[in-house]
Amino acid sequence: MSFFITFEGVEGSGKSTQIQPLRQQLESRGHRVLTTREPGGCPIADAIRAILLDSANRVLVPRAELLLYAAARAQHIEQVVRPALAQGVIVLCDRFADATTAYQGGGRGLDAGLVKELNAIATAGLLPDLTLLFDLPVELGLSRARHRNQQEALLDEGRFELEELDFHQRVRAAYLALARHERRFRIVDATGDPGLVAARVTAVVDNFLTRGEQP
Amino acid sequence: MSFFITFEGVEGSGKSTQIQPLRQQLESRGHRVLTTREPGGCPIADAIRAILLDSANRVLVPRAELLLYAAARAQHIEQVVRPALAQGVIVLCDRFADATTAYQGGGRGLDAGLVKELNAIATAGLLPDLTLLFDLPVELGLSRARHRNQQEALLDEGRFELEELDFHQRVRAAYLALARHERRFRIVDATGDPGLVAARVTAVVDNFLTRGEQP
Repeated sequence: MSFFITFEGVEGSGKSTQIQPLRQQLESRGHRVLTTREPGGCPIADAIRAILLDSANRVLVPRAELLLYAAARAQHIEQVVRPALAQGVIVLCDRFADATTAYQGGGRGLDAGLVKELNAIATAGLLPDLTLLFDLPVELGLSRARHRNQQEALLDEGRFELEELDFHQRVRAAYLALARHERRFRIVDATGDPGLVAARVTAVVDNFLTRGEQP
Repeated sequence: MSFFITFEGVEGSGKSTQIQPLRQQLESRGHRVLTTREPGGCPIADAIRAILLDSANRVLVPRAELLLYAAARAQHIEQVVRPALAQGVIVLCDRFADATTAYQGGGRGLDAGLVKELNAIATAGLLPDLTLLFDLPVELGLSRARHRNQQEALLDEGRFELEELDFHQRVRAAYLALARHERRFRIVDATGDPGLVAARVTAVVDNFLTRGEQP
């Protein structure tokens, strides 16, 4: 049986770290597993990702950014995700449409109706079976991310740090609001060391798979 | 007074050839004029255009293609077209949202509602003041285009030529349907040599500018 499982969370939540351990565990139990990520996951979506990253914070206008995320998602779904699901593979995806809702909608404050409309066009009705939201206080996540990429030095200037913190708090709040309204969400406590978080992920996914029902 | 004038038509209709003569004529009468084209017209939209052309007819899925056209359009409008119009410039644009309706909607048969929805998102309400539809029988247009790019040899194989012809006839029909319903359209007879067509363009644009009213 195929399942589409997405990993979501703020910066430094450790979601990307947790994908490979889950993959290995599922494979050791005989499942076929594909790990992928958004934006990207196939050559065309990677080319779109390059435009998104190259233009970040410069002249790319918010409406075009949103349309590019949607284009990359539409291509990734049709070329990678749907074919894998059709072959009985469990697909683990690092970020999906909920990230657009949380970052572009919650974080950047783009019109919620427009974000919803574009997510609907991009996904053409494909929803995750299970979404793991790696949740932790944004200060802790940013501290982890800062530690990971000390050379970025994004948070050195006081006012910018405050703006960043506020942005990430809006992202976290948007994720938590989604988790309250969508039954497919499971909140994973993302504090503590990676081994501890991995054990929590295993418990949630085991519960989902053994109960064999939609969350 | 600024105006937004778009050039539309099937392959080989000569619309791109007619932009520069009109520009020169308008400039000689003291207007400031910007010529541009879609998809493209600015670096980000050109990068998106490269993805569209690079992937044409291969793995790019129709929904992603439509979203990429919309993204390029949104960026081009905000970065190029609106700022020029705000400065009192006449903008002449080679293809715009009507091309998406005619090619993706009419030609490829994508859902008309989806095409309309994405045009609305991409343009955020910006409509041309005047749209010149360069109309001619598609056989004549394809013959011109073939003559122009003999090395492409797109039409050598009989069955493909028939498919192509049918595709372009649907594009032409979609353009003519738009022209019937939108008052901003003017149909320009695109048969005859370029000088003759240029005279027709001048007559239409003069009439538009001297009457000083929306078409």
